[in-house]
Amino acid sequence: MKQTLIRALYQDNPTLVEETIKVSGWIRTSRSSKNFGFIELNDGTYFKNLQVVFNDTLSNFETVSKFAIASAIHVTGKLVLTPEAKQPFELLAESIVLEGASTSEYPLQKKRHTLEYLRTIAHLRPRSNTFSAVFRVRSVAAYAIHRFFQEQGFVYVHTPIITGSDAEGAGEMFRVTTLGVNEVPTLENGKPDFTEDFFGKETNLTVSGQLEGETFALAFKDIYTFGPTFRAENSNTKRHAAEFWMIEPEIAFADLNDNMDLAEAMVKFVIQYVLDHCPEEMKFFNERIDKGIIERLEALVNADFARITYTEAVDALVASGQTFEYPVSWGVDLQTEHERYLTEYIYKRPVFVINYPKAIKSFYMRLNDDGNTVAAMDMLVPGVGELVGGSQREERLDVLLERIKEIGLSEEDYWWYLELRKFGTAKHAGYGLGFERLIMYLTGITNIRDVIPFPRTVKNAEF
Amino acid sequence: MKQTLIRALYQDNPTLVEETIKVSGWIRTSRSSKNFGFIELNDGTYFKNLQVVFNDTLSNFETVSKFAIASAIHVTGKLVLTPEAKQPFELLAESIVLEGASTSEYPLQKKRHTLEYLRTIAHLRPRSNTFSAVFRVRSVAAYAIHRFFQEQGFVYVHTPIITGSDAEGAGEMFRVTTLGVNEVPTLENGKPDFTEDFFGKETNLTVSGQLEGETFALAFKDIYTFGPTFRAENSNTKRHAAEFWMIEPEIAFADLNDNMDLAEAMVKFVIQYVLDHCPEEMKFFNERIDKGIIERLEALVNADFARITYTEAVDALVASGQTFEYPVSWGVDLQTEHERYLTEYIYKRPVFVINYPKAIKSFYMRLNDDGNTVAAMDMLVPGVGELVGGSQREERLDVLLERIKEIGLSEEDYWWYLELRKFGTAKHAGYGLGFERLIMYLTGITNIRDVIPFPRTVKNAEF
Repeated sequence: MKQTLIRALYQDNPTLVEETIKVSGWIRTSRSSKNFGFIELNDGTYFKNLQVVFNDTLSNFETVSKFAIASAIHVTGKLVLTPEAKQPFELLAESIVLEGASTSEYPLQKKRHTLEYLRTIAHLRPRSNTFSAVFRVRSVAAYAIHRFFQEQGFVYVHTPIITGSDAEGAGEMFRVTTLGVNEVPTLENGKPDFTEDFFGKETNLTVSGQLEGETFALAFKDIYTFGPTFRAENSNTKRHAAEFWMIEPEIAFADLNDNMDLAEAMVKFVIQYVLDHCPEEMKFFNERIDKGIIERLEALVNADFARITYTEAVDALVASGQTFEYPVSWGVDLQTEHERYLTEYIYKRPVFVINYPKAIKSFYMRLNDDGNTVAAMDMLVPGVGELVGGSQREERLDVLLERIKEIGLSEEDYWWYLELRKFGTAKHAGYGLGFERLIMYLTGITNIRDVIPFPRTVKNAEF
Repeated sequence: MKQTLIRALYQDNPTLVEETIKVSGWIRTSRSSKNFGFIELNDGTYFKNLQVVFNDTLSNFETVSKFAIASAIHVTGKLVLTPEAKQPFELLAESIVLEGASTSEYPLQKKRHTLEYLRTIAHLRPRSNTFSAVFRVRSVAAYAIHRFFQEQGFVYVHTPIITGSDAEGAGEMFRVTTLGVNEVPTLENGKPDFTEDFFGKETNLTVSGQLEGETFALAFKDIYTFGPTFRAENSNTKRHAAEFWMIEPEIAFADLNDNMDLAEAMVKFVIQYVLDHCPEEMKFFNERIDKGIIERLEALVNADFARITYTEAVDALVASGQTFEYPVSWGVDLQTEHERYLTEYIYKRPVFVINYPKAIKSFYMRLNDDGNTVAAMDMLVPGVGELVGGSQREERLDVLLERIKEIGLSEEDYWWYLELRKFGTAKHAGYGLGFERLIMYLTGITNIRDVIPFPRTVKNAEF
């Protein structure tokens, strides 16, 4: 008999009632008395379990009663509605066959485990309620990102993971090599000679696909990337991972306002999509992980995001009289405490802050006419602070060259990036969304290690 | 005035006829005489250009006439149908404004360029017809992959890029490090001491997400990965890149037949999706790159794939009397020449070959009852050979341990992989599809460097 998915039972309920069906899955919990028992069966296709009822008409009743948690089994039986019970239906087992046994050593017993402990069994934790919900939401949110962009004709670009330069200058990088340990030849000047390395030069893991993305935006107009990026920062916090996924759209013939419109629409779309497509998971987060999260997400979807300048933001923070750990004045970078205060207390809704001092932003951001600020934008949301960061890009060759010189970067490293400004340059803009931060925002999970299947952090690359 | 996309003109044709619209894009070609001229304008949103007609009623007629190829411009004008011309409509310019100039040094002039040359200007080549078509197909095919799996409830898993072991044993790897060059401390036994490295141990770039994928399949039943993978093989061929994207689905409570069903359905879905959604690009490939490719792709979509054993395949190859560069006999690995002969001449349709000798396949493939073969499968398609490779996985702990010992691998390296077989093991299967190989198959492009935005190969990591 063909396997019926538990998802289909819940979603097509109750078309299969009174029919004999076969389900296959893993025992989440099991209890039995002398002549009957209950199994909570999960087959991975749905957040909820199916209740299986069995009794001593089964020839292997005694054996079934003793199946360990996590055992894989096949159950054939009749589906019946149970309007008086908390579950909508149950399966009356006519046969239960073991597919793969488990043992009492199975680490995910019914008792609650700490998230820290569950990280040490990352190969098993997706079988728990919390991680089953997190990783399904992660999957659905990833798809929502693709849908959002593809339905508007954006071209998805796989920008390179291994890069031949640290041109982005966005943080410390991992070196990629095939040379033997301590066997790198040196040049006469004592510097390492990478000509014998795989790529014939020093290479690193990318910190951003933006610059390459711009080359595609100036061909396709609207593009996005969605791939892994890396930071070798030695920071052991809840918000940092060495390996994480990033979404970086880039749009041509577009300015900072278009960029904000896009970011706002994207965030709203993805949140609404997850609320619509993962109702059981979201209910779980709302009850067990972060009370009120559904309401907060719905509020965001319905909010009209504020748009203020950095200068207005600083003025408002100063005028608030609030004491911050890091004092605020024009020119300082906004800290999470400032960002949260702006969105949670002053504006009480998501806020775009634009036009930051050029000194605290990247060289590729478009210089405003005031000569002091650049057309940068950060999207701040309640509970998190910055969720999206982006800018209009400097499309004027002379201004860009000036900035590169000013900051002390090397023109030659950017020859192809500069050529985009020589051959049909156009206004363009883009932003980056850290995918894990979005998942944390969607689920209420507060440690980045708990939204990545196999997280990589300082001193940790298990599995 | 809001920008109208050229895609919208072609797709919603002719709702905007006789209206005044504004388009923005890049000049592909331009020619003019004394008092009128034509511009082929491409805005990146569609494969085809829009013909812009301008004349000396424009106050800047002389200037416009001299705009260099690749210049970015804004054109306002009236859209008129041109039923007698080869293009369906044209835009009668009332105003043409320069957004960003280009120069005569622009390397992509109208003459044909070799693909080799275009690789040296990877930042500009997406503006050519060929690469505009290739990279849009790549984007649409990637989305088709996601749609195929998501619509069936598969969970998308981001398996790790940086791995702490070379456990997959699928080829040479890139080492990832933050230690200074030639500054790795050594242990007393002379071996390198990686405890000071970022992750506290030696780490590499992944060659496959399969093993981690299996952990998720045994929680969610149906999962897939889609991410970059790496091979540090020093092979400078048309089919090898150091960095490429791979799709690896894994399904639980499923055997080799389910696996073949899934792979066949996926390949057919993606091909049909690209044929449906990229008609102009496919027409271009059919005419300019690989004559007959549309017909071959349609044949594949409608074919009933053959399913034969390795033993039958070898017998058929031997019986064919064909002379091969590599002679065939039971036990040898099939070469591309054999694979293509099977699918092109003997079976004349796509073929799954299953049950290969265990000696030439990986340790994790399920041992068949004959003790000599494993439940592996390769999908062979005309013109290419192997497109998909997979297997049913060894779900029996004792058999798997035996194989690990036999091959000389270390049990400890696989502790978490082995635990999947201790706690509710279940029949499961999966496969890998090299995304670039699929794109080559879809486009007729024969060099992998030409289907990757910024390819990484031996001695090459430009951009």
